[in-house]
Formats: sequence, structure tokens, C-alpha cells
Amino acid sequence: MKNYIKADEWKIIEEGFDPHYNKISESIFSLGNGRMGQRANFEEAYSGDTLQGNYVAGVYYPDKTRVGWWKNGYPEYFAKVLNAANWVGIDVVLDGEQLDLAKCEVLDFCRELNMKEGYLKRDFRAKTASGKEVKVEAIRFCSMADDETGAIKYTITPLNFSGAITLTPSIDGDVVNKDSNYDEKFWDEVSKANDHLYGGYIVMRTKKTGFEVATGMRFSLLQDHGANEPEIQPIEKEKYVASKIVLNSKEGKAFSIVKFVTNISSQNYKPEELIDQLNATLNRISIKGFDTMLAEQAAAWAEKWKHNDIIIEGDISAQQAIRFNIYQLNQTYTGEDDRLNIGPKGFTGEKYGGSTYWDTEAYCVPFYLSTAPQKVTRNLLLYRYKQLGKAIENAQLLGFKNGAALYPMVTMDGTECHNEWEITFEEIHRNGAIAFAIYNYVRYTGDEAYLGDYGLEVLLGIARFWSQRVTWSEDKEQYVMLGVTGPNEYENNINNNWYTSTLATWCMQYTMDVAAKVKAGDPSKYAALASKINLDEATEFSRFSHIIDKMYYPYDEKRQVFLQQDGYLDKEQILVKDLPASERPINQKWSWDRILRSCYIKQADVLQGIYFFEDQYDIDTIRRNFDFYEPRTVHESSLSPCVHAILAAKLGDEARAYEFYLRTARLDLDDYNNDTEDGCHITSMAGTWMAVVEGFGGMRVRDGKLVFQPFIPEKWSSFSFHIGFRGALLNIKVSKEGVQIKNASDVETTVLVYGKEQLVKANDELLVEA
Amino acid sequence: MKNYIKADEWKIIEEGFDPHYNKISESIFSLGNGRMGQRANFEEAYSGDTLQGNYVAGVYYPDKTRVGWWKNGYPEYFAKVLNAANWVGIDVVLDGEQLDLAKCEVLDFCRELNMKEGYLKRDFRAKTASGKEVKVEAIRFCSMADDETGAIKYTITPLNFSGAITLTPSIDGDVVNKDSNYDEKFWDEVSKANDHLYGGYIVMRTKKTGFEVATGMRFSLLQDHGANEPEIQPIEKEKYVASKIVLNSKEGKAFSIVKFVTNISSQNYKPEELIDQLNATLNRISIKGFDTMLAEQAAAWAEKWKHNDIIIEGDISAQQAIRFNIYQLNQTYTGEDDRLNIGPKGFTGEKYGGSTYWDTEAYCVPFYLSTAPQKVTRNLLLYRYKQLGKAIENAQLLGFKNGAALYPMVTMDGTECHNEWEITFEEIHRNGAIAFAIYNYVRYTGDEAYLGDYGLEVLLGIARFWSQRVTWSEDKEQYVMLGVTGPNEYENNINNNWYTSTLATWCMQYTMDVAAKVKAGDPSKYAALASKINLDEATEFSRFSHIIDKMYYPYDEKRQVFLQQDGYLDKEQILVKDLPASERPINQKWSWDRILRSCYIKQADVLQGIYFFEDQYDIDTIRRNFDFYEPRTVHESSLSPCVHAILAAKLGDEARAYEFYLRTARLDLDDYNNDTEDGCHITSMAGTWMAVVEGFGGMRVRDGKLVFQPFIPEKWSSFSFHIGFRGALLNIKVSKEGVQIKNASDVETTVLVYGKEQLVKANDELLVEA
Repeated sequence: MKNYIKADEWKIIEEGFDPHYNKISESIFSLGNGRMGQRANFEEAYSGDTLQGNYVAGVYYPDKTRVGWWKNGYPEYFAKVLNAANWVGIDVVLDGEQLDLAKCEVLDFCRELNMKEGYLKRDFRAKTASGKEVKVEAIRFCSMADDETGAIKYTITPLNFSGAITLTPSIDGDVVNKDSNYDEKFWDEVSKANDHLYGGYIVMRTKKTGFEVATGMRFSLLQDHGANEPEIQPIEKEKYVASKIVLNSKEGKAFSIVKFVTNISSQNYKPEELIDQLNATLNRISIKGFDTMLAEQAAAWAEKWKHNDIIIEGDISAQQAIRFNIYQLNQTYTGEDDRLNIGPKGFTGEKYGGSTYWDTEAYCVPFYLSTAPQKVTRNLLLYRYKQLGKAIENAQLLGFKNGAALYPMVTMDGTECHNEWEITFEEIHRNGAIAFAIYNYVRYTGDEAYLGDYGLEVLLGIARFWSQRVTWSEDKEQYVMLGVTGPNEYENNINNNWYTSTLATWCMQYTMDVAAKVKAGDPSKYAALASKINLDEATEFSRFSHIIDKMYYPYDEKRQVFLQQDGYLDKEQILVKDLPASERPINQKWSWDRILRSCYIKQADVLQGIYFFEDQYDIDTIRRNFDFYEPRTVHESSLSPCVHAILAAKLGDEARAYEFYLRTARLDLDDYNNDTEDGCHITSMAGTWMAVVEGFGGMRVRDGKLVFQPFIPEKWSSFSFHIGFRGALLNIKVSKEGVQIKNASDVETTVLVYGKEQLVKANDELLVEA
Repeated sequence: MKNYIKADEWKIIEEGFDPHYNKISESIFSLGNGRMGQRANFEEAYSGDTLQGNYVAGVYYPDKTRVGWWKNGYPEYFAKVLNAANWVGIDVVLDGEQLDLAKCEVLDFCRELNMKEGYLKRDFRAKTASGKEVKVEAIRFCSMADDETGAIKYTITPLNFSGAITLTPSIDGDVVNKDSNYDEKFWDEVSKANDHLYGGYIVMRTKKTGFEVATGMRFSLLQDHGANEPEIQPIEKEKYVASKIVLNSKEGKAFSIVKFVTNISSQNYKPEELIDQLNATLNRISIKGFDTMLAEQAAAWAEKWKHNDIIIEGDISAQQAIRFNIYQLNQTYTGEDDRLNIGPKGFTGEKYGGSTYWDTEAYCVPFYLSTAPQKVTRNLLLYRYKQLGKAIENAQLLGFKNGAALYPMVTMDGTECHNEWEITFEEIHRNGAIAFAIYNYVRYTGDEAYLGDYGLEVLLGIARFWSQRVTWSEDKEQYVMLGVTGPNEYENNINNNWYTSTLATWCMQYTMDVAAKVKAGDPSKYAALASKINLDEATEFSRFSHIIDKMYYPYDEKRQVFLQQDGYLDKEQILVKDLPASERPINQKWSWDRILRSCYIKQADVLQGIYFFEDQYDIDTIRRNFDFYEPRTVHESSLSPCVHAILAAKLGDEARAYEFYLRTARLDLDDYNNDTEDGCHITSMAGTWMAVVEGFGGMRVRDGKLVFQPFIPEKWSSFSFHIGFRGALLNIKVSKEGVQIKNASDVETTVLVYGKEQLVKANDELLVEA
């Protein structure tokens, strides 16, 4: 754990330059606007340790896989999020000496991510080997208002010399992908030009997938009146365009270069239109100018914050952390484009590959449901609907039939691309999370029309999968679920994972319930769907019902707890607190077989099921299971603490709820797991939000109403959050005085606070006293 | 299954050239002498489909692994058997046209492996595009008498033309390794020279491991008297030396080139001595001449066959097959060098990597015990003894302590280099097979001194491993063995595999028995060992005993069978015979998860344990388990049918025993599994021998005596095999008349035939009538 980020309500601040932290900071200070994004790499050359990263949403490369290649049914590739053309580069040469912070003495250094207004700023003073001192201020952003654009303003002041300063703004397509399996380069050059005195462009095409991305720049120079007109010399190399600008600088006189950048891709334009479109966009933004763009950026972010800010009073570190999580989620996914999803690293790194995991449905959907327009979550659901065909193909590859659908563990386009058998083939609970998200969406929004239009078709594919995936055990005279991996990936290929089996029967029941509702509401729509997918309702539903009736769930009578899987109690039951610190994290200290043999749980598994279906269990059952499993949980997934925070809160254990919250809130800011340098844990950031809203706020949806059961963590004096719910825009502030609810919309709504109904009128507020 | 190999008692014959079978034939017709070997690649250029392979025993490359790279404790590399310098090349240009069977019309073609005398012969007639016809006879071998050498005699007759024929004998070190993970080349050139008018050499060094291998050639030309002295022009390219020889040929006149080759490596000589040694060897063999070398080869093979031939009368296909198996085993391993072992592909291909699997102990040891001098098996045991330190290190990497040893799943030098977690970390029964081989060796040879000198130390390392690998289950109040993979690799990460648990407690008991014996026989030797390995006998042995007493073995009371693992009976129990043919082999037709969920067994698992410890089980127990498990076994490992053949024979089911035998005997000759092109299944060939000797011959060792319970497969009129046993050299012939036993040694021995003792006097014979 590190502690070098300075606390601030609205900013992430790094003071002083420690090269050891550079890659971590590059992740934390990342920028994005849902369409494109980048790590906080320096503009000027840097020969020290760095992970370069510029990403364009939806553009990927199918890297040939190695893992498990010989196993039948394996995906052929692993979709890699691609490092695309680097557009931040502005090389600086000071009178013949390259400015490179790895080689200079860094006198001052400050990096700031302004989350309120959505930009990154870096100030530093540096002294070169020959003693030249220079001051730099660099500001940049990816525009939220105009999502194919970004801009940089880079200001230099020579502090103790005058002379030629050469600036070389560039677009560099010759990038490396760190996660390449075969050290391959993934991009080919299509075309490039220095077609403008103040700029140029490059069009690159991904190998295999053939995505074309055009990246172009314009720059302008801001100098004192009377300065000489600079020499500008275009440079072209393979996959690289740049302009070399030689300026005569004067000691103490600042000058700036503004670099306007556009990134557009063949996902949104025909390839032959890319260059015209690029130039039109570049013209537009360069005419608009940096300051106007920055003002638009601040306005766009203000609008975001209006709907999803969380204010914590009395704990500046917690305040910073929760905003950082919300900020990164907004940078990653805006919900504008239903072809996109929420990559586990967002635009902060290339690790993991793929953009879509079950994280989206299990962790991110609640965040977007409450803080974004309804269509954002609907788009996330439609994303899966559109990939239903590929999920059916995927299931066929594994031997399933009759429209059974298995959604992929990891994907970019619906095709499975994860490739460890114990995950790819067996971590099938993901299918249940996708069904649960439909349930959750409809429960929250009341948008029942979605079910008949799209949801039921997905549900039937999923239910068919489960009905084929179970095995009738002659021995038990029950259905069993063999060979699965639960959310706790520290168990592989187990039998009868309670969570998976519970989710499976729930899916089948929910599917039949939805089918009945759609059939009753719109018989002809139902008939059309049944015909489209060859539904034999009588046979199929009676099989579903038989499985629901005769499903085997492992249970320990003695302890009265659901058993994570068959044989779990054969393991040596030493609690996590009794493990020596030197042995942790076990995923770094122990061999894989030892982890698998142990009782240790990576993330909520039985407890994930209890979280999903808490209304089905009495509080004692929840407590017994929590008290049994949490002490065996090592929380070595970033997705783990939030579920535990919510359950601890439900059980009234406020101290532990807060403790779990702390483990997730500053995960990246404090580099808890020593892996932030690879990128931030974007999807788990939604879990942090859940910990506050569902944990401390105790928010649920029951019978079409919002329910709150809040408490304030001891250190805080108050906290408040925004919730959009069926047209109402609520702000809930929890303080020592009580729960204040403001409704900033024209829609009135009834909520339950501590079990009592409260009518919150339109554009009104009320206080439920503590 | 293919059927293009012509039956013959002593030869493997391919008549006619089908390019589709070329890679299969390259495997089948491979040559070797335990020190070096090669696939049956053509001498002249061939632009068709081919897998080039020349191998030098013990030389390997640690190819960086991909599979499971992120899992803690993983091996960093996978040791690849290396394709080394190609020494067979003799390019032929006929008056400007290259001889290349992929581009010529092949008029006749015959490839013959002469197993009796140990050489490969190829005859063909071919017509070039321009109509030139040529006849070629090529004979070559790897010398068994002089194991660093080989020779080729290549004879050409121009049939319808006269003119310049250019021959280019070469040594080509610029080879490709098909199994390279990163398409890397594994060899660097050290030096080369055309240092002799009639030959040259090249010294190559492997990357990383630094093995140096010097490969040199001399050639001589055999022509009609009066032919012109040929022009000889040396050629050198990167990693390549050759001589271009231009001859004036006359229509109808044959001429030959003889190529003498030597392969020597830095395993046996200092690098600086390699070239002198190479030249001395080349001088020796080129002076000796091809015919003398070939005669020595025939004599060396005659000596081999004297001790291990099996003669089958009445079934020429079976005769050919059994000899082919014995022949390949002898080509792969001679037991001369205790640093070498028996690679699963021998010198016939590069697949699988590593040279040492549990196959050696479980399948090959019985063959070498009976057919080779005692020291051969002893060397196989010493190989593991010498690697004990690395087995202890390997166990430490996985968290074991106090001298616990886990031998690797695959290795070249003792280091684990397999890298799929479910195998590497969990297929730990291999450790038991290594202990069993010690038991088997001592039981067979009576060499109890081995135990005190070497065996006990290995046994203690293994027993310590097992004692730490078990887990005390509070739930069962027994020891369990969690997270293992049995010989049936179609189950991964299972709990309480009966075979592994049975082997584990047997190892601990045997270790204590041996310890007691060594202690009693030589207390000071025992004390020295105990001190060397910090043995705390009282504590450790009492733990062993406690585990033996309290071990949990899964068992099905209803069927009265040992259960392969916990939960096996939850699987859908459809027998193999009821699986549609279109679904088989399941490892090609089914996804991995489906295989894992199924009841299907890859190779003997419970039955492997019953085979090892058959004396512990009554015949009804064996029958019940056989009748339960065999119908669930798909035999998709080449190691499977032999164990079943032996057990079926024991159960008196002669027809099934023969059926299993047939599945293993011609596995490669008929390319049963469509994978012979990658190389032959060398270690399973020992299983074929076991099926004849232990199955049909019913041979066992009990109480220091050989026991026979033979029967003749219906199709055969007789079969006979050679057995060396404690100094006696026996030939056992089983025919309708009875069992004839000849003793070709000065040592008399008592055997049991059909339960009755028979004294077989020195240099005598007897007949036990049917």
C-alpha cells in the first residue's frame, strides 16, 4: 500500500516526482470520455519506466492464444484492448538538449487530476545536465462534449537561458502492446500526411480485425507579440507524422503550444470518409480554441456530477476516493453507444483484454441505474441481447443444443475469448448474472416492455442452458451441477457450487414467470417469440420445473450454512486472521494447487448469492453464512469487499461495513494490491459506489419503491448521494440530524426510510429525523 | 486407422509413395541407437509435406512457457526435445533438374525398415518433369555398435540419360523446431569447416542450455573404374556446410555415394575437444567402411534380439507389430547412460517435450527388467536418485518442507517443466510410481543393497511428501487427499482419487518397511542416512502410521467397488458402448468441460492401482472393479489398453485380453489415433510387451520366483518370449502342446507354471504339457 496521493476534495494530486511511482500515476491520472482515453504518459520524451497507452473504445485485436490451445472447444484468440496511436507526444529540445525527466534534475513536480472539470494538469521545473532550467505547465483532456477530440496546452518557460527550443508535436502509430502474446505489432499503416502547415494525420488499421483509426493533430503557438515566426519542418517516418518547430526563446518568457487532436474510427464512419471527417473535426476544434473546449469540458462534467456526485463531510480522504471512483466510471462508459461496454481497466491499461465481464451486470448496472438516464442501463442490456446469437453459438461449441445460450466470460463482440478452461468453460455463473441484470433493471425501472421486446428471449436462452447443464444423479436422485467454477476462483472444477446452482434454478423460475407475464400481456408477441426460437413450452417448462423441484444444494446441517460446494468442509479450516501476514496475498505467495486445496475464498461466493437474493433469507440465515464465510475470505479480488460491506451493513455491523468500504474505496489511489501500474480496477469502482449507497445508505428497491436504511460511518459527519428513480431525481443526505431527501424533479415518489413510507413531492424536500 | 504398411515378420514395408502418408512414415521408419536418432526424412530435397527431425539424446532447450504463466509456482520453461543438425541431406541435381519426389512422377517406391539388422532402405524410380528417369537405392542406419555414428549409402542409376549429376551432401544446422512456442531458432553456430576434401563439420550450441553438438561428415564415391575424377566444391553458408560434387553419369550405370556421419556432444566431451574427437571418429568409421559398419550393426541387433525377441507363430501382422514395438524401445534407450531416459516420442518426433514421464517407471521398467541387463533398470532408478535434490526443490516451490520430494511430471534434468496446473501441480501419483519402480526392481532382481545405498533416501522424500499432502478432515475424522488429478486425466482437481490415495499410503508403508530392513541390516548406514536427511523417525513414522490407519478411500457399498473419486457416481452413467461413434474420440469431439463432467475414463485409474497391487485383492474384487470401470473407459491414452489386457487375462477373459492387445500393438503402424505423424508412442510400446508377457504369458514375480499362467490367443499357434531373471536366461514358448521353457544360462531357476513349481536347470529345457 502506498500513500503518496495528496488528499483533496476534488483533485487527485501527486507532489514531487518519484520515478518508481510513475506507472502507478500514469494509471491513476488517466483520462477518458467513453469513446477514447489514455494513460497519463508525459508529452515530452521520457526514457524512464513507463507504460504507454492510448485507447479507442471498441477497437481490439484478436491475439492468438496459447493457453489451453490443445483443448477442444477453445477460443482461438484473446481479444486485446489495443494501444493505439500516441497523440500526446510533444518532444522538447532545449538548445540541443532533450527534455527528459528521467535525465534531468526535477526541481518541482506536481500532477493534478481535476475531477470536477475533467482535465489533467502537470507542472514541473527541471534542470538539464548542462544546467538549463525550464518550467513547464501541461494541461490536457479528452473532451466529454465532443468525444472524438482532445486537446493539450503545453507551456514552457526557459528560466535561466535564451536560445532555440525545438518542439516536435507528433502522432506516433508505431506503438507496442505490452500484453501481446507473440510480441507482435497489431497495427499497419494505411496512410498519413503532413497535409497542413500546422498538423498532419495518420490512419492505422488493426491486423485481422481491420479497424481503421484516423488520428490527426493541429497545433497553434502562443507567443509574445514580436517573436519571430518559427521554422516548421514536417517529419514523416514509418507509422509516424510530426512537425519540428524551432523557436527562439527568451529567458523568463513563457510560450505555449496547443495541440488539438481527433481520433475517429471506422466503427462510426466509412473508411473512405475518415480523412475528410478527421479534417472537418480538426478544423472545428482548432477554430473553437482550447479555452472554449476546456469550458465545455467543465460544463459536461458539471452535468455528470449533478446526477452522481457523492458528498462526504468530515473525511476528505473518503471524499476524494469516492469521487475518484465515480469519475473513472464516467470516463470509461457513458452509455451513448450500445456496442460498447465497461472494460475492467477502462482506458487506464491494456491488461485482461476484452471489454465485457460479468462485472458489468453484477456491479456496474446498479451504479448506472441510479446515476444515469434509463437508456444507459438499457443499452448495457441490449448489448447482451445483440450478442445472443453468439452466445448460442458459443454454447453449441461446447455441445449444448436447441438455442441454449452461454454468454462469454470475456468478450469484445460476443465471441468468447477467455482461455483458461476452468474459467472459460466452467465459470458459467456469469450467465446467471446476465439474467439477474434483466430482473434488476425491470425491478428498478418498471420497464416491463423490455421483457417482451428483448429480455425474455435472452432469459429463455439462458434457462435452456441451465436445464442442459445439470446432470441427473442416480445416486442422489437429484439434479447436480458438476464441474463449475464459482465467483470464488480459488476453487476450480468443483461440483455443486451453491451459488451457481441457486442462480440456475432462479433463472429458470424467473424465465417462466416472465414468460407467463408476457404471454398474458401480449399473447401474439409471445407466440411470435415462441415460434422464432422453437419453444416447446410444455416440455421445456416442465423440465425447468422438475429441475427446480429436484435440485441438490449442498448444506451443512451442523452449522446450518449453505455449503460453497461439495466437500468444502474436508478442507483445513484455519481462518484468514490466523494466517501469517508473510503468506499473504496467497495468490502471490502460494502455488495454485495449495490455494485450491485451502478453504480460502477469493471473493463473495455463497455471499454473492445471498446479496442477490437477500429477500429470500431471514436475517439469522444471512448472519450465519456471513459469520462462517467472511472469516475464510481473503478478498483478493477487487470485487470482494463491496458485497461484504453491504451485507455487514445489513447485519448492523457498521464498523465492519466501513472497514470493507475502505478496502475498496482507495484501492487504486493507494495501490493496495501493487498492481495499479497495469491500470485501474474500473468495474470494482462501481462496487465502491454500491458500498456507500446500498451499504451505508441501505438503499434497495422493493415493490417498485426505493427503500433506505441508512447509517453514518463514525468518522463522517454526513454523506449524500444522488438517485434517479423512475423520473424522480433525488438527493439523499444522511447526517446526525436525520435523512434529508430532496427531489429535484417534477415527479413525486414515495420512499421508505427506516421502514416508514415518505411521500417526496416534486421539487420538494423532507427530513426524516434521526 | 490406416492400413498401408505391408505385413512382414522382420520388416516394416511401405510400397508405393503417397505423400499424405509421408509424415506418418517418417515417424514409423525412424532410426535410433539410444544416443542419437532421426525421422525417416529423405536424403534428397523434398518440397512436400515433411517433419524434419534429427535428435541427440539429452540435448534440450528450455522454451519459455506461456501456459499458466501467471500462476505462482509455475515452471518457467518447457524443455523441448531439439531438432538438431540435419545430417542425412544429399541433394541431387540431374543435369540441371533437382530430384524432388514432390515434383517428380514416382514410378516405384519402397521404404523398408529392417528390424532384424537395424537399417532403413529406400528404393525408388522417378521421372523428372523433362522426362529423365532415375533409380535410387538409399540405405542408412544409426550405429548401435558405435553410437555416435551413422552412415548412408546412396546409389543412383540414370535410366534413360547420361550427363552431369550433381550431389551435395550436407550438414545443415539451420533447423526449425516445429514445437517452438515463439518460433524461435534454438541453435547458434559455434564453428564450421570444410576441413577435408571429402567432408566437413559444424559445431552448434543450444541457446540458454549451452549444449554443443559437433556434427561431421566424410563421403566417398563408388563409381565404375575409369570414371572421371569428380569436381568437388566446398560450400559454406550460415549454419551449413556441404560439398558440391559434379559427376559425369552414364545411362544405365549405377554409382554410389557413402556418407559417414558423426554426432558428438559436450555432454560427453569438453567443448575444446569436440573437433578432434569428431575427426578421429570420422577417420575411424570411414576407414572401416560402410559394409563393415553395416555388418557390425546387424551383429549388435542380433545380440539385442537374442534377449528380447518375441516370436508369434500363426499371425504375421501380430509378429510384425510386437517386433516393431521392441525394436523402437531398443532404438530409444539402451541403458548405457544413467543421464538419459525414455522420451515419449523417442527419436521419432519432438512433441511433448521432456524425456521423462511416469511412463518410465510404470510401463518401461518391466520391459527392461526382463530383457536387458540388470544395470539398465538400475540406471533408470539412479536417474531419479540423482534428481532427488531437484524433486525436493520442486516440492519446496509448492510449499512443502523438510525434505519432501515431488518428482516432476515431465523433465530433462530433474526440474519440472510441464505447465498445466491440473497436471503439474496435481497429477502427483507420479511420485508413487517412482516408489513402486524401486519395489518392482528389488522384487525382480533381489538387489536389496540398492535400498540402503539409494532407494530408501528416495522413498523417504516421497513418503514425506505424501504425509504433508494429505489433509485432516474434521468433518470425516479421516485424512483426505484434496485437489489431485489421477492417471485418468479426464478428471482434474478431484478429491480423494482412490488410486492416488492408495498409492500414497502404500508408499508410506513400504518406506517404513524398507527403513526397518535397512536399519536391521546395516544400522550405521541407516544412521548416516537419517542424519543426512534429518529424519525424526519417531515423529515422522508415527505420522505415516496414523495416516495409513486413518486414510479415507471412496467406496461404493452398493456396487462394492472402489470409487475413482468423491462424487463419481453423480455423473451420468452411460457406458462407452452406448456412445455414438460420431462422438468419439471424445478428446477430439467434446469440449473439455464436457469431458470432465462425464464418467468417461481416459486410461486405467482404479484399475492401475489394482494392477500394481493385485495381490492385495481377491479375484472377485478385481472382477467387480474391472466390470465396472472398463465399460466406462475410452482408452484415449496409448497407455490404457495394456493394463486392461493384463487384467482381462488374469480374469480369464482371453478374448478381451486379445482385443486390448490389438489396440496397442499396431497403434503407430496403423496410425490408430491419427497422430503418428508427430512421432511414435514409444513408452506405450513397453505396454504392448507387457500385454504379451504379463497378459498372455501371465508372468509375475512372487516370493523371488517367476510365475507363469499362460494362454494362447486363438489366432496364434504359438508365441515365445525371452526373460532374464536373476542370472537365468529363459525362453518361454507357449503353444498348443504346452509351455516349453529353455534356460540358455549357467544359472538354474525354479519357476511356477500354472501353480506348480518347475526346476529349470542350467542350459536345459522342459515342457509343461497343456
